[in-house]
Amino acid sequence: MSTYPFQFEIEEPTLLLDKQKCVQNIKQLVGKAKKSNINLRPHFKTHQSHEIGTWFKEYGITCCTVSSLRMAQYFSEDGWNDITVAFPLNYLEADRINTLASKINLNLLVSVPGVLPKLLKKLKYQVGIFMEIDTGYHRTGVDPTDDVALECIMEEIALSPLLKLEGFLSHAGHTYNYSSKSDVEDIHLEEVRILNGLKDKYKSKYPGLKLSIGDTPSVSMMDHFSGVDELRAGNFVFYDLTQSIIGSCSLDQIAIALVCPVVATYPERKEIIIYGGGVHFSKDSLKNEDDSTSYGAVVRMNSNGWELPPTKMFVKALSQEHGIIHASEEDINNIKPGDLLGVLPIHSCLTADAMGSYVTLKGERISKLASS
Amino acid sequence: MSTYPFQFEIEEPTLLLDKQKCVQNIKQLVGKAKKSNINLRPHFKTHQSHEIGTWFKEYGITCCTVSSLRMAQYFSEDGWNDITVAFPLNYLEADRINTLASKINLNLLVSVPGVLPKLLKKLKYQVGIFMEIDTGYHRTGVDPTDDVALECIMEEIALSPLLKLEGFLSHAGHTYNYSSKSDVEDIHLEEVRILNGLKDKYKSKYPGLKLSIGDTPSVSMMDHFSGVDELRAGNFVFYDLTQSIIGSCSLDQIAIALVCPVVATYPERKEIIIYGGGVHFSKDSLKNEDDSTSYGAVVRMNSNGWELPPTKMFVKALSQEHGIIHASEEDINNIKPGDLLGVLPIHSCLTADAMGSYVTLKGERISKLASS
Repeated sequence: MSTYPFQFEIEEPTLLLDKQKCVQNIKQLVGKAKKSNINLRPHFKTHQSHEIGTWFKEYGITCCTVSSLRMAQYFSEDGWNDITVAFPLNYLEADRINTLASKINLNLLVSVPGVLPKLLKKLKYQVGIFMEIDTGYHRTGVDPTDDVALECIMEEIALSPLLKLEGFLSHAGHTYNYSSKSDVEDIHLEEVRILNGLKDKYKSKYPGLKLSIGDTPSVSMMDHFSGVDELRAGNFVFYDLTQSIIGSCSLDQIAIALVCPVVATYPERKEIIIYGGGVHFSKDSLKNEDDSTSYGAVVRMNSNGWELPPTKMFVKALSQEHGIIHASEEDINNIKPGDLLGVLPIHSCLTADAMGSYVTLKGERISKLASS
Repeated sequence: MSTYPFQFEIEEPTLLLDKQKCVQNIKQLVGKAKKSNINLRPHFKTHQSHEIGTWFKEYGITCCTVSSLRMAQYFSEDGWNDITVAFPLNYLEADRINTLASKINLNLLVSVPGVLPKLLKKLKYQVGIFMEIDTGYHRTGVDPTDDVALECIMEEIALSPLLKLEGFLSHAGHTYNYSSKSDVEDIHLEEVRILNGLKDKYKSKYPGLKLSIGDTPSVSMMDHFSGVDELRAGNFVFYDLTQSIIGSCSLDQIAIALVCPVVATYPERKEIIIYGGGVHFSKDSLKNEDDSTSYGAVVRMNSNGWELPPTKMFVKALSQEHGIIHASEEDINNIKPGDLLGVLPIHSCLTADAMGSYVTLKGERISKLASS
């Protein structure tokens, strides 16, 4: 085990970004969307970075999705002028909505009746409205069979010319519970069927409604899309171990690894302690085959970034700043304090959010939105 | 359920800090330490805030503990000039160590042999060294019966006049697994016994070695301390649900609550959706009595902050920005989008770390260290 092989120094937990893999992930989905003649409105909640946003621009992407108005504000400051906030409308943020809607094409999500009239008390500029439909994930959105709720929201939209119904939006987050292409395909096709049913039902009153979908498993595992207008996936930009287990990506598509200094080894317990804890990784976990818990898979660093496949080492526990790695006897004897180990994240969205910036394989620091 | 009763507006997830409770927690431990004639070197990793640090200063505290050199740097910038970094020495950060040690009294922690010689290649200023002893938590530290390792580290310290052995330090984190005063007391007394054994053993060569301990359950549940020189607890500044279950605090000592806007309610599922997710709470959880998982207990807001006891509602699931609250039929019919609910955190250190700032009950924003 040698120290870090690059031309720049890493001395603390650092979120290393393999730009080439990341751009390849972008390129692949852009190509797929183009082939299906469908709009790609990538979700930027995963990377939350101006610079990574520009990598999408280079592939012709001109609109994006975010999960908060703060994030919409951040991307609007970098020239993004067509943004959907794919999170249930929080009318308490009416001032932010006005500021944004005065400058850009802003779409909001309505997931229950009763919130738009509250927004209208303060709204000054036109906004697009997507109605969120619950196609089976059961987190948020209107039950597609609940005509009363659907029509109530439509009546609320009709209250003001500042509100324009853009279409129906859904997030089939239940694909995360499956790991076969056919299961994911079934969920996706059911989602498309439900949304098209609604589109048909209301087409006389609202012609040309758009249908927007967007979970990473569906967009990754399906080869072709029909019956919808827009894809909103986000995680695919980095992928992670969760997605690789679902089957959305191969391990070599994972574009980030948290590089952590080893600070202690305890051979008798087969444990390596890294500087890198819950505040860096976040605390999402997966079960290993033997039912032990993993907070990340350990990779060794090389001059191309990190080596694959991952080692058999994994992060077995996290304190605030400590990570505890389970190692084999062989690993533990080759690894010393001061070495750097990489960890492929369980859930890249949360790990990226926890970290303040990225560093590319060339040592360039890439900034991102700070926490609120 | 009325909207937020204070004179300032909350429109997004906000970490509300009850300064009075926080100062009372500080005052209580300061008083206890004084009574036992023991130094209090509070761990600032929980709050990570200059301003909250000054509240300790007002009670005569002049030294602190941190968990990273970044944090040491941050507090040194606000006049703290006696800081212990209670995290295994990461010699890759030798430059930061030199910068700090050139200005302040800096103590470092050594948890394994072999790292000090690496540090010495770059060290330019004197630092204090605490040897970390594993008194049973088995995360980091030297086995107190491992004379070879102990003496190896002592020989490393003797290599340079820049290294001064200050004493033995331990963190009895295994108290977190218990919830009776007698169990916590047993762990504490065993820790004190082990550390004193080492002090005695090496007193002829190293007279006056200090003994430093510091978990929140011990310092909270014990009334008197003897046989040690220093307490380093940190979590007590805010406490949290985990500590209240252990028995370290009462619910009314918990000094922070994450206030979140309700954005949707789904009465048929008894679920309330809040704007507040994994990126705000972090993802530590506890088990409810019926074995369901809780990411926080819901409190109602009133003009004094929040009402106790907590409601029966709890956060049952977290996505990146969504929190899903389990509610009773009665609750769900009284709560509407736009209402604000408070959530007492499971683990205040991680929730505080995830959030960028605090807001007091008077609406004053308190800044803290940003993520790396």
